[in-house]
Amino acid sequence: MLKDFEKNKPEEKSVLNAEIKELRSKLMGMQQQLREKKLPILVLIEGWSAAGKGSLIKELISELDPRFYNVISPVIVPESEERYPFLYPFATAIPENGSITFMDSGWMESLVCKLLRSEITEKEYKRRVRQINEFERQLRDGGYLVLKLFLHIDEDEQEERLTALLSKLDTAWRVTDADLWQHKEYKMFRNAYESFMDKTGDTIPWNVLDASKRKTTLRDALRLLVSQTEHALSAGRYVGSPFKEDFPLVKMPKLAEVDLTPTISDEDYKKELKQLQDRLGVLHNLIYINRIPVVICYEGWDAAGKGGNIRRVAYPLDPRGVDVMPIASPEPHELNRQYLWRFWKRLPRTGHICIFDRTWYGRVMVERLEGFCTEKDWKRAYNEINEFERVLTEWGAVVIKFWIHIDQDTQLARFTDRQNTPEKQWKITDEDWRNREKWPQYEVAVDEMLQKTSTEYAPWHIIESNDKKYARIRALRIVVDALEKACNEHIKNLLH
Amino acid sequence: MLKDFEKNKPEEKSVLNAEIKELRSKLMGMQQQLREKKLPILVLIEGWSAAGKGSLIKELISELDPRFYNVISPVIVPESEERYPFLYPFATAIPENGSITFMDSGWMESLVCKLLRSEITEKEYKRRVRQINEFERQLRDGGYLVLKLFLHIDEDEQEERLTALLSKLDTAWRVTDADLWQHKEYKMFRNAYESFMDKTGDTIPWNVLDASKRKTTLRDALRLLVSQTEHALSAGRYVGSPFKEDFPLVKMPKLAEVDLTPTISDEDYKKELKQLQDRLGVLHNLIYINRIPVVICYEGWDAAGKGGNIRRVAYPLDPRGVDVMPIASPEPHELNRQYLWRFWKRLPRTGHICIFDRTWYGRVMVERLEGFCTEKDWKRAYNEINEFERVLTEWGAVVIKFWIHIDQDTQLARFTDRQNTPEKQWKITDEDWRNREKWPQYEVAVDEMLQKTSTEYAPWHIIESNDKKYARIRALRIVVDALEKACNEHIKNLLH
Repeated sequence: MLKDFEKNKPEEKSVLNAEIKELRSKLMGMQQQLREKKLPILVLIEGWSAAGKGSLIKELISELDPRFYNVISPVIVPESEERYPFLYPFATAIPENGSITFMDSGWMESLVCKLLRSEITEKEYKRRVRQINEFERQLRDGGYLVLKLFLHIDEDEQEERLTALLSKLDTAWRVTDADLWQHKEYKMFRNAYESFMDKTGDTIPWNVLDASKRKTTLRDALRLLVSQTEHALSAGRYVGSPFKEDFPLVKMPKLAEVDLTPTISDEDYKKELKQLQDRLGVLHNLIYINRIPVVICYEGWDAAGKGGNIRRVAYPLDPRGVDVMPIASPEPHELNRQYLWRFWKRLPRTGHICIFDRTWYGRVMVERLEGFCTEKDWKRAYNEINEFERVLTEWGAVVIKFWIHIDQDTQLARFTDRQNTPEKQWKITDEDWRNREKWPQYEVAVDEMLQKTSTEYAPWHIIESNDKKYARIRALRIVVDALEKACNEHIKNLLH
Repeated sequence: MLKDFEKNKPEEKSVLNAEIKELRSKLMGMQQQLREKKLPILVLIEGWSAAGKGSLIKELISELDPRFYNVISPVIVPESEERYPFLYPFATAIPENGSITFMDSGWMESLVCKLLRSEITEKEYKRRVRQINEFERQLRDGGYLVLKLFLHIDEDEQEERLTALLSKLDTAWRVTDADLWQHKEYKMFRNAYESFMDKTGDTIPWNVLDASKRKTTLRDALRLLVSQTEHALSAGRYVGSPFKEDFPLVKMPKLAEVDLTPTISDEDYKKELKQLQDRLGVLHNLIYINRIPVVICYEGWDAAGKGGNIRRVAYPLDPRGVDVMPIASPEPHELNRQYLWRFWKRLPRTGHICIFDRTWYGRVMVERLEGFCTEKDWKRAYNEINEFERVLTEWGAVVIKFWIHIDQDTQLARFTDRQNTPEKQWKITDEDWRNREKWPQYEVAVDEMLQKTSTEYAPWHIIESNDKKYARIRALRIVVDALEKACNEHIKNLLH
């Protein structure tokens, strides 16, 4: 791929210039269509140090309207200082509909560097390659045009360029130790790049460009960008089909089968609440010290008691280390990106706890039922969500998911109570009543969600909440047990 | 203030508990009104190490609905590693309308620490005290309720608490070197806190709470929060009045007086463009190495040529170190905060350049003319903006502001051209024609803006753009000169 790569033949300068000019004007002309057709484009530019990634981006954007693009240069953080999942800087930087993000190095450089520096194991490398393939597919299926370029120069060319940079006072500072190391180990890097491209070219192919002549590189990049954009604009926004993957699923009961009669006495409630909260407070410290991230998800029927349940879990936690994230309907800048983006943006740092009050499962419930996405979209989402949660658990996160469950009579009683109690009236809206009428449709959707997304690594817990106190104790106990287990495993891993 | 502070008298536990319960339920009851009346509340909790700031926040939020609050714990970054203005972490963390932000330490602790650690000079300290007073006033005038608490414990009490923490294995890790230093230098810190509170209590008063007994502290904090919130809710959202401050202003001509005839020949244009862009490319490296932040603001008439002008300035810059920020109408989460918030969020890091395509001056132009804010709001904004830009320049930023100017005939010709050229039609909308009809009103607003906000530290430049090429060369030259000057001054400062 790289080893026996053939360079472009020398070309007539005037012909080259004319083509560049034409391609640029085509690209310029397409900007408005991008916006109209809501097409988002991610251009990933990888390649050798001194291959001219920055200059290429400069030329690509030079005639574009700034409203239609942005440029991102993710920094490679040493693995030991990472506070977020590997894909975080990339997943949070995807473009809005109708605009282009140019990424000056991205997941390829970051991952290959970490492997070669032995900051991660071969096993972890393989996982991340899988995560990258999933990430790229999710983008494509979500309607993104992803264009991946690799700017190639051979060892001699790189030597020449680094020498030129180093021999001038005003450019020498631009050459980093990492660049020098890459050049010294050119062959090792070449093999690593080749192997990476080999493993990640199936969904979105790699385009290796001869980067030895700037103009030709620019022309080649423009050709690709223009032709792929033209194609995507005329084909219309792509919507990926559902796909089949076997996740390790936990068998879940149907909601209708759940016994909602369990209760707890006031006396037991008080005693257990105190015990569990005390224990949780201590565990939070361990979580913090051991830098384990925790994601707790709450879904459930309206008036099921999510709010009160969350408060009992959050209360013993140090407020500096926990965030409760209420998820409302998305704002425009959120709607204009792949649906998981707004959750990527809200992930906790390592050692922190994030409690989501409603979650990404909106995709397969309200968005499905209200038609806010296509059928293909929500059908695909089960596996996409399983992938997303697998990324989280592979990062080391504890993922706990609650469905707070009540029956229809209990909901009616609580709705009526809210309606009749002045201080509670704001809690009940017409929308709640409308949703209540759709209980049967929701029940179908929730059952399907529970069946398809209760994985071994992130299982659902149905919490019987006709008795709210019983529900709180159950949820607290699950959280305590999960954190206890995670701390023990973490310590075991440290020692072995 | 702190030295002879009198402790609360011991109180009957049951009475205390009853009052806390009542206050909590009042606070809970007010949540929905907060939302309805769009009242944002910022509770700043400062105080001694081990005074119980975290626990107090925990108790304050324990019954609140997570949709109505969030908790922030800003980290104190050593001055040498700061990449943003001092107020940045606080100004970017202000709450949305209708919600409460609890800040666990904030600008007081951060500033006092930096002074005592000799990371900043006495002069810089005074500046920041002034910036803080301005910041607090801007929040108040923008309708925020700001409540400032200081949790006080005396030296003996602190000793006791630190000892208790240190003598248990599971809490010892919570005591930092900074805490121990504060205790060793208790008197020095006390003086510094007192002096700070003394200088920052005029706009928003400080409330020193006896923190020696947790329940009493909680009750006192709740009393303040509840009574001030009640008052703010019944008084209605506060709108600050315009105020008078003498900024060092540069005399500006009226737009009508500007001679728009200057032009440039194609030959000169090409030559100068190349020279200036080459020089700018070199300067960008110096800016980056010397970590000078640069903010370039573009305002001007529709079709004045802002976009093309920006592109010529941005082209020679390394795309990794520059961001072009198109400013569109605000999204809900932006509208729901003080109007400068969305610009604070977009500030460049040190060494980076940010080009704003439209700016915070929307407040005194479109928002003024379309009635998107009150008269008091936009009249106050001139000075608030002068303060904001002073914060930027005191931080070390170069602030360059362009008004791209054309006459009405030129605008009409360009509008007509856009209308008649298929590829350009998207650039012209009905709104542009509507705005054109309001040219006279806009001219009044722009003239007033230029008179009132052209400060010596951030002057306006009116760029004659009937000839776009002439305008580009003028803007480029101003940028080059300003960066050149900033680099020279920076180097001089390093040496003296």
